[in-house]
Amino acid sequence: MVRGRITGLAASDIRFPTSLGHHGSDAMHPDPDYSAAYVVIETDARDGLKGYGLTFTLGKGTEVVVCAVNALSIHVVNKDLEEIVNDFRGFYRQLTSDGQLRWIGPEKGAVHLATAAVLNAIWDLWAKQEGKPLWKLLVDMDPKQLLSCIDFRYITDALTEEEAHEILQNGLLGKKEREEQMLKHGYPAYTTSCAWLGYPDQQLKQLCTEALKDGWTRFKVKVGADLPDDIRRCRLIREMIGPDKTLMLDANQRWEVKEAIEWVTKLAEFKPLWIEEPTSPDDILGHAAISKALAPLGIGVATGEQCHNRVIFKQLLQAKALSYLQIDSCRLGSVNENLSVLLMAKKFQIPVCPHAGGVGLCELVQHLIIFDYISVSGSLENRMCEYVDHLHEHFKYPAIIKKASYVPPQDAGYSTEMKEESARKYLFPQGEVWQKILYLSHNKCFALRGDAIVK
Amino acid sequence: MVRGRITGLAASDIRFPTSLGHHGSDAMHPDPDYSAAYVVIETDARDGLKGYGLTFTLGKGTEVVVCAVNALSIHVVNKDLEEIVNDFRGFYRQLTSDGQLRWIGPEKGAVHLATAAVLNAIWDLWAKQEGKPLWKLLVDMDPKQLLSCIDFRYITDALTEEEAHEILQNGLLGKKEREEQMLKHGYPAYTTSCAWLGYPDQQLKQLCTEALKDGWTRFKVKVGADLPDDIRRCRLIREMIGPDKTLMLDANQRWEVKEAIEWVTKLAEFKPLWIEEPTSPDDILGHAAISKALAPLGIGVATGEQCHNRVIFKQLLQAKALSYLQIDSCRLGSVNENLSVLLMAKKFQIPVCPHAGGVGLCELVQHLIIFDYISVSGSLENRMCEYVDHLHEHFKYPAIIKKASYVPPQDAGYSTEMKEESARKYLFPQGEVWQKILYLSHNKCFALRGDAIVK
Repeated sequence: MVRGRITGLAASDIRFPTSLGHHGSDAMHPDPDYSAAYVVIETDARDGLKGYGLTFTLGKGTEVVVCAVNALSIHVVNKDLEEIVNDFRGFYRQLTSDGQLRWIGPEKGAVHLATAAVLNAIWDLWAKQEGKPLWKLLVDMDPKQLLSCIDFRYITDALTEEEAHEILQNGLLGKKEREEQMLKHGYPAYTTSCAWLGYPDQQLKQLCTEALKDGWTRFKVKVGADLPDDIRRCRLIREMIGPDKTLMLDANQRWEVKEAIEWVTKLAEFKPLWIEEPTSPDDILGHAAISKALAPLGIGVATGEQCHNRVIFKQLLQAKALSYLQIDSCRLGSVNENLSVLLMAKKFQIPVCPHAGGVGLCELVQHLIIFDYISVSGSLENRMCEYVDHLHEHFKYPAIIKKASYVPPQDAGYSTEMKEESARKYLFPQGEVWQKILYLSHNKCFALRGDAIVK
Repeated sequence: MVRGRITGLAASDIRFPTSLGHHGSDAMHPDPDYSAAYVVIETDARDGLKGYGLTFTLGKGTEVVVCAVNALSIHVVNKDLEEIVNDFRGFYRQLTSDGQLRWIGPEKGAVHLATAAVLNAIWDLWAKQEGKPLWKLLVDMDPKQLLSCIDFRYITDALTEEEAHEILQNGLLGKKEREEQMLKHGYPAYTTSCAWLGYPDQQLKQLCTEALKDGWTRFKVKVGADLPDDIRRCRLIREMIGPDKTLMLDANQRWEVKEAIEWVTKLAEFKPLWIEEPTSPDDILGHAAISKALAPLGIGVATGEQCHNRVIFKQLLQAKALSYLQIDSCRLGSVNENLSVLLMAKKFQIPVCPHAGGVGLCELVQHLIIFDYISVSGSLENRMCEYVDHLHEHFKYPAIIKKASYVPPQDAGYSTEMKEESARKYLFPQGEVWQKILYLSHNKCFALRGDAIVK
C-alpha cells in the first residue's frame, strides 16, 4: 500500500496572535502567540496525497525550528516512503543521530521539535495512503510492526524489546471491544479553557458556567504567580463546580522544589487531583521529592509537556516522580518516541493523561491516547486527555468533543492538515494577518515617537 | 569602567572541514566539521573594543544556532553594557526565560547554545573594557558581585545563595598565593589529540610518542564502537605510556546502561581513571547505576560536555552519578551558569575537569578552571583540563600550553576572538575554503552522474 518517493519537504512559520487576548497565558508564558512549524511533504506517487506535520511553538523561535526542519530535510527528500516505514526505527535513528546535527540536541530543543514536525508529516502521509485515521493504523498493526517503529536506545534498563512485545501481545485481548467502546463513547477529556492566568474573575466565572452547561466535569486552573490570587481563583472554581467534580492545578514550572511543596500544601483545601509542572521539567529528582511530600495530601504530580525525550520519561518513572504522565505529540519524536513512552508507562502502571491545547495538539494527541486505550493500557481509570477550545477552526479535520469526550477521528491521516487559507493568512510575517498587525504596531510606534517629539 | 550601549550584534556560521582528516571522530560523531556560531557585539563607546563570543558545533546545525542567536538579539541590542553587568542575573533570566522563546528550550538545545554564544561575547567585552583576562576579572570580583551573576532558579534545593556566598568567602583565604602559583606553573592539562577513533594504529603510535616527548602524562582514548578494537588500542597506549601515567576512556554516549558496565569491565585491566559519557547525557539515574557498578574497579564516571544545564548537573551531583564533572564553556549559559556549577561541585566535593577541544573550547574554558582553582576549589587534586591540539591558529589569543599545563592568558578578554582572515575564509558557505570544497564536490557529483549515464 505504501508508495512514492518523497520529492519535496516545505516548512513554514505559522503564528496565531493569541497574546492579544491573553489566551494560553500562564505563570511562565505571559504572552504566547500559539504557533507551529508546519511541514508539508510531497511524493511522486501521483495519488494527490500530501503529508502534513507540525510542532507547536509559542511565537518567537518558530523560525529557529523551521531552520532545523530544513537542516533535517537531507535525510528525508529522495527517500522512498516504503523504505522509511519498513525500517522506521532506522529512519528515526538517522534523523536523531546525524553525527553533526545531534550536537545541537541530542534529541532535545529546537532540533527535536523539528524531528517531531517531520515525522508527524510522515505518519500523516502513511495513514492517508492506508486510508485510515492514524489511531486505527496503529491499532491494526501487529505487535512486531509497532516495535519496529521504536528506537529502544537508552531505555533498555527500564523496558526491553521483549517486555514491550509482551505488553502489546497482552493488549490484543479485548481489543475489538475497546475499539467499539471508543467509537461509541469517545475518550474522556478535561478542559483548560476556563482558567488561564490572564483571565479576570468575571471571564473565568462565565467560562466555567458555560463549561458546566456543556457537560464538563474536570477542570484545570493555572496557578503559580501569586498565592492569594491562586487561593481566590481556586476557591471560586471549586465553589462553582462543587465537591465531586475534578480540579487540577498547573504551575508551568514556576517554583523551586521546596517552594512547590509549601505553595501546593496551601492549596490542598481545594482538593486538587494533581499539581502539574511544579518545577523545572528537567528536574527528575525534584519531582520525586515533591511527589513524596504531596502524596499524604492526596495530590499527585503530573508532568510531561516539556519532557524533552524518552530518557527523561524513563527516569521520571524509575524515580517515582509522577502520578500522571503527560505525553505531548509535538515535543517527543512523533508517534515513534511516544510509543516507547506509552509502553514504559504501562510497565510502571502510571496513567497517561496527554497534554493538548496550543495549536493542533488536540488534533494530534487524541490519536495516540485512543490507540493507547485500545492496544496498550486497556484502562480509563484516572485517565483523561486535555482539551482546549481554540484554534480548531484552522484545521481541515478538527478534533470533535461530545459529552466532554474526544470522538475518534474518522478521516484518514493524523488530523494535522491546516486549512489552506489559514496557513496562508497566518504565515509569519508575510501573511495578511501579520502584515496588518505589524503595520498597526509600526504606526503605533510612529505615533508614540511623534508624541515624544511633540512633548 | 563599563561603558557603551550595544549597537549591533552579528552572528555568523564558521566551519572548519575537520572531517576530511577524521580529526575529532568518535563513536557517535564519525565525521565532525568543527564549527562555531560566532557572535560579534559592538557598542557606541568609541573605544574600539568589540565583544566576541562563540558556541561550538559540529558542522550541520550551526545555521540553526545562528538563527537562534538572531532571535535572542532583541534582548541585547540597545541595552547599556553597564545595565547588563549590574544586573547580570536579571539579564541571564531575560535571555533564558523569554515567555515565547523558552518553549523551544527551555535552557537546552539550540537556543541555549545561542545564549552561551551571546553571553560569552558580553563577558569578552566586559573583560576587555576592564583590561583584564576573563579569569582575572572573575578572581578580582568580590563574592557578592559573583553571586549577582548567577541565576539560582531550580538549584536552591542543592545550593542556596547563602551557601554559595560562604564558599566564595572561604575561597578568599590563600587566593593570592594560588594566583601566583597559577602564573608560575599553569593549570594541569591532559591530551585527547593522540587517539581519535578514526586514527589508524600507526598514527596513534606516532602521536603518542610525540606527546610523551612533549611532557604529557595524561592521555584520553576514544572507545565504544568495537570491543576488540578498543582492547587493542587501549593495550597499545597503555604499553606506550607505561603503568604510572594516566589513561582515560571516552565512549561519547555509545552504550546502554548495562552494556556500559559490561564493556568497561572488560577494559578495566588497562587501569583507566574514568569512563567518560558512557550513556545518554540525559540519563542521571543511568550514570548513577554505572558509577556504583564501576566503583569497585576503581574507575570513575565523568560527564558534562552535553549536560545541557545546571539542573542536570545538580541532579548528577545529588545522585552521586559522577566522580569527575566536565563543564563546557559553550553548552551551559556562559560564565554565569558555569559559576553555579563550579559552586555546586565544590559543595558536593566533586573535582571539575573541563571539557575542551573542538574549536575555541580550550581558549575559553581555561579562564573558568583557573578562576575555579584560585577562588573556589583551591585544589588541584584529581583535577586537569582537557587539551586538544588543533584549530588554535585561528584565534587571535590562542591557548598556550607549557609542560602539559595551560599558561594563564594575559590578554584582556575571554580569548574568544578569531583572526579576521579565518572568520572570513571559513564562513559557511560563502568563504573561500568552502567555495573550493563545494566546487570540488559538485564536480565530483557531476562526474559520478556522468559516469552513471555512460554505464
